[in-house]
Amino acid sequence: MAIVNRKIVLASRPEGMVSESDFRLEEEEVRELEDGEVLLHTLYLSVDPYMRGRMSDRKSYADPVGIGEVMTGEIVTRVEQSRNAKYQAGDFVAARLGWQEYAISGGAGLRKIDPSSAPISTALNVLGMIGATAYFGLLDVCKAKEGDTVVVSGAAGAVGSVVGQIAKIKGCRVVGTTGSDEKLKWITEELGFDAGINYKTSESLIKDLARHCPDGINCYFDNVGGPVTDAVFPLLALNSHIAICGQISMYNATKAELGPRFLWNLIPNRATIKGFLVFDYYDRFPEAMKDLTEWLLSGKIKYQENVIEGLENAPKAFIGLFHGENTGKQLVHVSD
Amino acid sequence: MAIVNRKIVLASRPEGMVSESDFRLEEEEVRELEDGEVLLHTLYLSVDPYMRGRMSDRKSYADPVGIGEVMTGEIVTRVEQSRNAKYQAGDFVAARLGWQEYAISGGAGLRKIDPSSAPISTALNVLGMIGATAYFGLLDVCKAKEGDTVVVSGAAGAVGSVVGQIAKIKGCRVVGTTGSDEKLKWITEELGFDAGINYKTSESLIKDLARHCPDGINCYFDNVGGPVTDAVFPLLALNSHIAICGQISMYNATKAELGPRFLWNLIPNRATIKGFLVFDYYDRFPEAMKDLTEWLLSGKIKYQENVIEGLENAPKAFIGLFHGENTGKQLVHVSD
Repeated sequence: MAIVNRKIVLASRPEGMVSESDFRLEEEEVRELEDGEVLLHTLYLSVDPYMRGRMSDRKSYADPVGIGEVMTGEIVTRVEQSRNAKYQAGDFVAARLGWQEYAISGGAGLRKIDPSSAPISTALNVLGMIGATAYFGLLDVCKAKEGDTVVVSGAAGAVGSVVGQIAKIKGCRVVGTTGSDEKLKWITEELGFDAGINYKTSESLIKDLARHCPDGINCYFDNVGGPVTDAVFPLLALNSHIAICGQISMYNATKAELGPRFLWNLIPNRATIKGFLVFDYYDRFPEAMKDLTEWLLSGKIKYQENVIEGLENAPKAFIGLFHGENTGKQLVHVSD
Repeated sequence: MAIVNRKIVLASRPEGMVSESDFRLEEEEVRELEDGEVLLHTLYLSVDPYMRGRMSDRKSYADPVGIGEVMTGEIVTRVEQSRNAKYQAGDFVAARLGWQEYAISGGAGLRKIDPSSAPISTALNVLGMIGATAYFGLLDVCKAKEGDTVVVSGAAGAVGSVVGQIAKIKGCRVVGTTGSDEKLKWITEELGFDAGINYKTSESLIKDLARHCPDGINCYFDNVGGPVTDAVFPLLALNSHIAICGQISMYNATKAELGPRFLWNLIPNRATIKGFLVFDYYDRFPEAMKDLTEWLLSGKIKYQENVIEGLENAPKAFIGLFHGENTGKQLVHVSD
């Protein structure tokens, strides 16, 4: 009996806020494997803010998803059939094969997961791209070291929550910004952040940040952009570093938003701002995975998953990211 | 007969655009030298945009000038009297002793000038802080290398004109922005810039920059800020570097100016922005002076001086910087 793949394809390029009608669910019969190939069955898929960029045809670091093509993204899968000597049926494998229930791979870019050490979904979270992004962004781009004051925006998101916990492990003072009191409570009471600010209810972001960062801000890990980021610049410390990881507040904008000019702030403080992509650290992933696995297993890093059920709900889960609906990592459970 | 010193002191802290009434000329008798001291007679003094920052009492990298205190700044002087074995009457010396005709120094921070190699005024220009700023900003902060496209704002100013010429020496394509057609002509026809843009008459800075930088911008040396800088961000090349040297368009602003948010541009290009101060390179000055002297003497670096006559006109010369009145280095000739 033929296996039927269900996949979410890009139906149209969104103008402004992405909507469910920009996606379409399609079905197709899965073809026979050729030598060297494996058939993967998706268990979880990851939705992440960066995918909004792939829906536009603006020039970027990666080609956009074509209209009618499967939405890009990381998945955790189980090998269903194998004609590749390196994999056998039942193996758990992480891959970047998009929003679909089944995928065929020749083996390139696959990563085996050991299900005995940690839940397999962590391969899409702390023990995957999310963890590596937090790790290299904080330690390499922000150059965080003991005694530094670290501010993280989007602190209750997947990346932000890991950034803050690594910073605590490294002996930093950590202040996070979030969009709800519930998230605030999670990062301060569960994750050990020294302080947090709900940017939606703060009367003055700059005063609140100044109060929590009496010695200035040495490191700022930015996932969000906009008014939160504006408030950081006047508080920079000498030789401070800012990592631009994401600018989620801007991804659905249809025109350039205005904000206060701040570059003059960089001069007296000799501050550095750097945009980065985790892919540039690919060769150093094992280093991050070693530390992150140790921290996860010893309980020094905690995580939270927001799991939505069913491939057909992936667009909804994705759109929720831009409305701050997730605390921790947003996942879609596709099959068991 | 007692020597009378004339000095320009800060009379009031400007709100917004600095005016001549913020300064006051004072006279005082010069005291007798003590052992180890020299009496310096100012020949030229330098006015530079950064001094606007010292007139405000906003926290910065250096203390502000106090009300009633001599305005800060670099001068080229001749030793008039000496009770310091390292200096004798007639020596030419560069110092940071402010806007005054005579100054007493214990020797700290003085730098002897050889008048036989280049005109002594170059110690306030290519062979001084200006040259070192251009040198380290371009080569260390912007990391300019052969084949790069370098954009310089304030390209006909003291620092900008040297930046562009060093970039040409290093084999870069160089595009400058200026505020008049006369300046444009100077940088392209005399200094060898590949192209220039008059930002006051350009109908689209971004289109003009894109036309002159077909492979994107690898290095941006920013003296100006504002709309010129806004136009650079969408054109950044991969791994590009931006040096924030000055933001002259902002120095007299009374409130934060708004501009388009641009940080998201840094992510796909892994671009770096760094604010810098030339003082951080103090230990490496000899390296810059060696190269700059060679380039100046061999005619690879040209310069232009705008000289205003008389200490009493220093405030006027200084204010002119913010109205784009100078091409090249603005100096005040104080005495012969």
